[in-house]
Amino acid sequence: MSAVRVERSSKKSLLSAGRVKRFLVIGIGVGNPAQLTLEAVDALGRVDVFFVMDKGPAKEDLNTLRKRICERYAKVGHRVVELPDSPRDPAIESYPDRVALWHEQRVQRYVEFLARELGNDQCGGALVWGDPSLYDSTLRLVEELVRRGIDLDYRVIPGINSVQALAASHRIVLNRVGGSIHVTTGRRLAAALAEGHDDIVVMLDGENSWKAAPPQAFEIYWGAYLGMPHERLVRGLLAEVGAEIERVRAALRAEHGWIMDTYLLRRIDRAP
Amino acid sequence: MSAVRVERSSKKSLLSAGRVKRFLVIGIGVGNPAQLTLEAVDALGRVDVFFVMDKGPAKEDLNTLRKRICERYAKVGHRVVELPDSPRDPAIESYPDRVALWHEQRVQRYVEFLARELGNDQCGGALVWGDPSLYDSTLRLVEELVRRGIDLDYRVIPGINSVQALAASHRIVLNRVGGSIHVTTGRRLAAALAEGHDDIVVMLDGENSWKAAPPQAFEIYWGAYLGMPHERLVRGLLAEVGAEIERVRAALRAEHGWIMDTYLLRRIDRAP
Repeated sequence: MSAVRVERSSKKSLLSAGRVKRFLVIGIGVGNPAQLTLEAVDALGRVDVFFVMDKGPAKEDLNTLRKRICERYAKVGHRVVELPDSPRDPAIESYPDRVALWHEQRVQRYVEFLARELGNDQCGGALVWGDPSLYDSTLRLVEELVRRGIDLDYRVIPGINSVQALAASHRIVLNRVGGSIHVTTGRRLAAALAEGHDDIVVMLDGENSWKAAPPQAFEIYWGAYLGMPHERLVRGLLAEVGAEIERVRAALRAEHGWIMDTYLLRRIDRAP
Repeated sequence: MSAVRVERSSKKSLLSAGRVKRFLVIGIGVGNPAQLTLEAVDALGRVDVFFVMDKGPAKEDLNTLRKRICERYAKVGHRVVELPDSPRDPAIESYPDRVALWHEQRVQRYVEFLARELGNDQCGGALVWGDPSLYDSTLRLVEELVRRGIDLDYRVIPGINSVQALAASHRIVLNRVGGSIHVTTGRRLAAALAEGHDDIVVMLDGENSWKAAPPQAFEIYWGAYLGMPHERLVRGLLAEVGAEIERVRAALRAEHGWIMDTYLLRRIDRAP
């Protein structure tokens, strides 16, 4: 904590303490511009400068969506500033450490770009895929900027996330009557299964982690590119559709150069 | 399953088999009409007949919101049909049984009202508080109607739910870096705590169930009437703000005649 305090006071002088910049963190849904809320549309119209990070292999598709959204809803004369993103360093073994370093690099770039690109009378904005509250690092980044003395008056606009898009496309309720839902990552799925949860939503799974589930005991509701024109859904008993999902997933990834998928694993035949 | 099949064929003849009625299940957010998505606005404009259930003590406020939304976005000449709702029978001890009976009564009313009020060339709609995929019974009801032979061509429009509204208002991310989130009800919170989860979202809590959490070990991000003009937020160490939440909650409930609140319990000082 003391390191953060020191950082704060040293940055404060650099950044002209007392000048507040407005900043909007806007959830934009997961691929269908019609998922934008009215509040998000309003917010898009207030932003002078959008700050965007490169998003790896998905970049092209995400850029296209972002451009469509800005062309349609951002104000005339808005600017888009691209911040180069560093890849996470695979040499760092600990996942939290790796993310922490990557995050620190992003913070430093943001500090630099905000000072240079955003006037004190202006409103900055970040477009967040899905919802800023779920598996997204933008809010942690903005919090860190504030902790370091940048006077940002920021607001969060929620957006439809991929879990909701998955449920809507499959027309399902995620929970059973009165039951719980466990939301986790591919990396943590094996542990979640061991804990005995009945309804598990998995995000950020790069490697078919559902294979850790006993195939006779679960059904799966899977979706990729949710909300996009090439959305793909598969559902069924894991024992029956698991191989299909693996095949479809590999084919789609090869076709598009990236894939983003989400799924619900639901334990069969247990009272809620 | 066979009981359902019999039900299906007997109802089928009553309802003129083969005629498909369109139906839209529309998530409308949790109190702020600006949370409507563009897709929801579009859907509202397609509905000829809205089917709504009485919602107990919250009825008046929810009705006001619904009316504002319909006046603004529904098509000219749309109709609103109110279905009387039966209270859940407190004499039935098992929670799932109680919900099942209540649900059955709703299904029967819907069967009757759909047959009487919705023409075959028309589109019906249900407005869902929050998102249809989370702790809402509308989709289970529609599924049951289809299972009983009503040919409904239905689609789901996701909406911002109270968990997202809570996170946006507190400007927080629900998960820690790479961590899981457990979403549960007040009724199941004690069990979820015993399972050792670090980040627990609680919905449908009628009785300050957060008291089951060790107050020194958790912080809480609490919100009531999220998205509404009288939204109220409290956050802090459970040991420090617990009593305040209980007091505020009781006062607000007395003032408005109902309360809907949601919160995140976050374990302090544990690595993600």
